[in-house]
Amino acid sequence: MPNNPYADGCAWIEGAYVPIHEARIPILDTGFTHSDVTYDVVAVWNGKFFRLDAHMARFTSSWQRLRMTPSLSVSDMQDILYECVRRSGLRNAYVEMVLSRGVAPAGTRDPRLFDNRFYAYAIPYVWIVQPEDQEIGTHLVICQDTIRISPQAVDPTIKNFHWGDLVRGLFEAYDRGGTTAVLMDADGYLTEGPGFNLFAYYEGCLLTPDSGVLEGVTRRTVLELAEEMAIPAKMDRFRADVLRAADEIFITSTAGGVMPVTVLDDQQVGNGKPGSVTMRLRKRYWDAHDEAHWTSPVDYPA
Amino acid sequence: MPNNPYADGCAWIEGAYVPIHEARIPILDTGFTHSDVTYDVVAVWNGKFFRLDAHMARFTSSWQRLRMTPSLSVSDMQDILYECVRRSGLRNAYVEMVLSRGVAPAGTRDPRLFDNRFYAYAIPYVWIVQPEDQEIGTHLVICQDTIRISPQAVDPTIKNFHWGDLVRGLFEAYDRGGTTAVLMDADGYLTEGPGFNLFAYYEGCLLTPDSGVLEGVTRRTVLELAEEMAIPAKMDRFRADVLRAADEIFITSTAGGVMPVTVLDDQQVGNGKPGSVTMRLRKRYWDAHDEAHWTSPVDYPA
Repeated sequence: MPNNPYADGCAWIEGAYVPIHEARIPILDTGFTHSDVTYDVVAVWNGKFFRLDAHMARFTSSWQRLRMTPSLSVSDMQDILYECVRRSGLRNAYVEMVLSRGVAPAGTRDPRLFDNRFYAYAIPYVWIVQPEDQEIGTHLVICQDTIRISPQAVDPTIKNFHWGDLVRGLFEAYDRGGTTAVLMDADGYLTEGPGFNLFAYYEGCLLTPDSGVLEGVTRRTVLELAEEMAIPAKMDRFRADVLRAADEIFITSTAGGVMPVTVLDDQQVGNGKPGSVTMRLRKRYWDAHDEAHWTSPVDYPA
Repeated sequence: MPNNPYADGCAWIEGAYVPIHEARIPILDTGFTHSDVTYDVVAVWNGKFFRLDAHMARFTSSWQRLRMTPSLSVSDMQDILYECVRRSGLRNAYVEMVLSRGVAPAGTRDPRLFDNRFYAYAIPYVWIVQPEDQEIGTHLVICQDTIRISPQAVDPTIKNFHWGDLVRGLFEAYDRGGTTAVLMDADGYLTEGPGFNLFAYYEGCLLTPDSGVLEGVTRRTVLELAEEMAIPAKMDRFRADVLRAADEIFITSTAGGVMPVTVLDDQQVGNGKPGSVTMRLRKRYWDAHDEAHWTSPVDYPA
């Protein structure tokens, strides 16, 4: 498709498909001014959505718990996601869906009275860690200056844009020579980082925090694949001492998959190369993107 | 000005003045997708900005601490605020300025490399509690289900859009028959509510929380006016028991001024009418909007 206006990405904004760089939302939308919004991100890989049902189910649970009511059905939303990808022509895409509280009607500030707004877009696939850097492994910093927002304040299982703590953590990581950051909670348990869940391979068992974190679809996929591959795994809380003693560390996200960590703070992880369990899971994760039970093909224009 | 296209409000978006209902920001702006943004709100009352210098100073401190660098000077920003109000013709306005991290340049997610974006708008003055309801007093609920985001996660003195906890608190207040909410921190100390600071008049002294809250300009103004009026006042942390025993309670915001609370949870405050200290401060607060040392007139078109 030469001169496809959607080649850099396609968005759906209030009933119209628009090129991504023209996609705009009202400045008065409380999804912006109060971050009163939820979202989800699903990947398209080799022309197929990966685990779209899981993402739609989580998105639905998120807006229900925020007491929002979209004017579109889940099936309508899904059709819009397909159409954004179809128009973009992207074979590998990062597809985001958003439900925002919306704009206050005249004369009220009561969020129960707002019309909630759905937005969606597909852009080229996003890598938290670039594939070539994944071969080397990334440098993770455990933040000392910033803790993760408590679930008693903002529920992290409702996927949200409250990244103030995560961005603050990222700057601390940069200051300390790292490339990304993981935050502890107020009790010193590890939680998650900017856009990813955390895994440690420690004493022959995969560990990932069980609370205070997003219930990541990639995290769940890794746990399911680990079971299939007979790798012991459990969800449980753990502190920095366990992470420092881990044989392998990796982070997971729809934006990048299974990404090895080879430096933690100023210390090498294991032998300083991406671990073998990590790399087996990483390969299995990407192979699964071709399997029918987890994928739904996009019907691209001829 | 009949048929003024800016009569409902005027915004400045990337170099152009636009009617407020056409004012839009990029959906990819991380001010939206990561709430990586700071803002400030200043009032115009009877055609004059109120304490504009204090708001510009706080705004500057906020973006500096987020390590943002606007392409405009503070003086340029201020000129834009004046022009938004001037074009709108509004004599009583809510004037918001925003500095956002901005949109990721192609090929990076490193927030240090983004061009930060300034947005601004003036809309009709916003009342958290309508003036007629202020005469009766509002019904405040102390949230039991949600705590305020910790300053160790997101610094509340950097004015921010992380309202997830506050909106969740507001829904709890509605469920319990209230009209607005105040949140405690993890240790049970009272903090603030959606868009306002909290004051108690207890044992002959005004109290307002000293940490875990926005350093509100209206809060500061009340403390300065209290000193002038020889009303004892201090900033200190306190719990629900003190608030329940208070003779008077009020909330403060640029969006509404000094707003009396007459019902706390299911209990009447004092004699159930707005308190006399509260009402004296409220009158003095509005009178101050005509005094030269705190105001800067807008030069409206003839």
